[in-house]
Amino acid sequence: MRATLLYKAGDVRIEDVPDPVIEQPTDALVRITASCICGSDLWPYATMAAHDGPVRMGHEFIGVVEDIGSAVTTLRRGDLVVAPFSVSDNTCAFCREGLHTSCTDPQADLWDGLAEEGGQAEAVRVPLADGTLVKLPVAADSALVPSLLTLADVLGTGHHAAVAGGVDEHTGVTVIGDGAVGLLSVLAARRLGAEHIVLMGRHGTRTELGREFGAAEVVSARGAEGIAAVRELTGGHGTHVVIDAVGSMPAYEQALGVVRRGGTISRVGLPQYEQAPVGFGSLFRHNIRLAGGPAPVRASIDQLLPDILSGAIEPGKVFDATTGLDGVPAGYQDMADRNSLKVLIKP
Amino acid sequence: MRATLLYKAGDVRIEDVPDPVIEQPTDALVRITASCICGSDLWPYATMAAHDGPVRMGHEFIGVVEDIGSAVTTLRRGDLVVAPFSVSDNTCAFCREGLHTSCTDPQADLWDGLAEEGGQAEAVRVPLADGTLVKLPVAADSALVPSLLTLADVLGTGHHAAVAGGVDEHTGVTVIGDGAVGLLSVLAARRLGAEHIVLMGRHGTRTELGREFGAAEVVSARGAEGIAAVRELTGGHGTHVVIDAVGSMPAYEQALGVVRRGGTISRVGLPQYEQAPVGFGSLFRHNIRLAGGPAPVRASIDQLLPDILSGAIEPGKVFDATTGLDGVPAGYQDMADRNSLKVLIKP
Repeated sequence: MRATLLYKAGDVRIEDVPDPVIEQPTDALVRITASCICGSDLWPYATMAAHDGPVRMGHEFIGVVEDIGSAVTTLRRGDLVVAPFSVSDNTCAFCREGLHTSCTDPQADLWDGLAEEGGQAEAVRVPLADGTLVKLPVAADSALVPSLLTLADVLGTGHHAAVAGGVDEHTGVTVIGDGAVGLLSVLAARRLGAEHIVLMGRHGTRTELGREFGAAEVVSARGAEGIAAVRELTGGHGTHVVIDAVGSMPAYEQALGVVRRGGTISRVGLPQYEQAPVGFGSLFRHNIRLAGGPAPVRASIDQLLPDILSGAIEPGKVFDATTGLDGVPAGYQDMADRNSLKVLIKP
Repeated sequence: MRATLLYKAGDVRIEDVPDPVIEQPTDALVRITASCICGSDLWPYATMAAHDGPVRMGHEFIGVVEDIGSAVTTLRRGDLVVAPFSVSDNTCAFCREGLHTSCTDPQADLWDGLAEEGGQAEAVRVPLADGTLVKLPVAADSALVPSLLTLADVLGTGHHAAVAGGVDEHTGVTVIGDGAVGLLSVLAARRLGAEHIVLMGRHGTRTELGREFGAAEVVSARGAEGIAAVRELTGGHGTHVVIDAVGSMPAYEQALGVVRRGGTISRVGLPQYEQAPVGFGSLFRHNIRLAGGPAPVRASIDQLLPDILSGAIEPGKVFDATTGLDGVPAGYQDMADRNSLKVLIKP
């Protein structure tokens, strides 16, 4: 079959690879019908050294179950399923607490859990299939597929950002970042009833979608100027919740600048730093909380799926381009150049 | 009148100073009947340079209202009152949210708000008296005074640590530090129903009091050895809530070591660092939250007072020494030498 391999920064290739096979009795084989490129794929695309490659890419996909291992009980051949970006058994103590990204099963893992297989391909072996995969009650060619595909990562991540930040109908929210996760954080905060949402982003077509998803205001300025603009929009106090959907140190500093006293900075952008200011002069003095992490999207699918099926939310609007596997290398470059927001792949 | 002045590290003096007077119509004058030395007083006692002194000391006290400004409406001469360690108007947006330590009134402040006056003295001027002071329904010589005095800071701080950490009947808690705040964090966590409490401390008489307050286990080891001991006591996973009642970098590192995936580190010890690890390898990977800050003790007095009046809790047990003003300099040294846990002052 054909699959996507990243050889090194800037070097994505579509190659023939061996077909996946059932290795563990808990595995399922899935024929992929829809996949996509993630903002997080752009980090290795920008920086990976040749000696770390080649690696198989893709951790968000929908597909049809083609075969199951002997221990799989909840899935049947022909089921349409969506795969969260983390593999989990859905039964350990952490999964039962809704923290599937911290599952303790030896086969569980974050992005790396699928790295030998990759979702930007024609098919994939999914470990811990009963725990990981979720059946979808539509056909593989449903018009809802783009929105359903966001359950694999970006919608669930935006939802997690909002929940970890404590968004409710009494909270103002600032979202830093106008990528797919930032925009779906806006949608998720709106869905949870946020009183007022400010989106910090500078790309007009993206921030327009952010307004459509529920942002009342858009601030395109960054740094001190951006902070001043958000404070002006919020009575001088900033917002109760600040969602960092970027992960850079400038984004963190921006979050510190716009968070309200007693508020929460909720991070879902992978931090590009290890040390950061958290002492008296930053978080401590005014009881500002720091929350967030990799989203346990498996936990939120049951809550979010009905709103997609009913049409109440249309998170699939973040896809502004569609390609076959041949177009994947160009899709990476288009996203890196910010010509595409998020590329849907039909293998 | 006589008051306590810190001239520089290690140099505490009792001196005659002018009697306080009403300066603002919102002021009250309070004749102090009980005060104490705080663990946080030991920081300047250990480090303050001579050019920063002398400063008046003391931010925890009970006393009798001796005079009130023309705008004070809720207090009368003769009322017995307790003073939270932060001055607040109790009416601004932040006070209404229960975050009195972030009150926006120009006269509001943290410790510094009383620094020109000081509670380790015979009398004190209290700004924003209606907002700051809370009447006590006992006489000044009540046997409950030591416990009621802890409402000014250490009990409210322990309560805040537990609340900010999210303690409930489903949570295990580790408390780092066996000072008065650490011990009262144990009491507060117990009061909120914590399932299991581990106290990390190495001073036998203090940890015994910690057991009396509700700690099921005491771990005296520190660093890697201490972390391993707590993990062994908690099924390998650590605890949902870790309260840092110390504020040093080793305490923070210990907290990272014993917090459960998805758990919360709640800090009430004043951080002695500004930068700390918070990235993928520390907080982010497993959705660990960082919470806490200066406790809005004004907000919790109404909840905690009934339990003191009923005898359900006896936080005053943290006082293991009592002195008049003359004994205050020796009291500082005794606490610095860890010969005293917390010194009560009867001016």
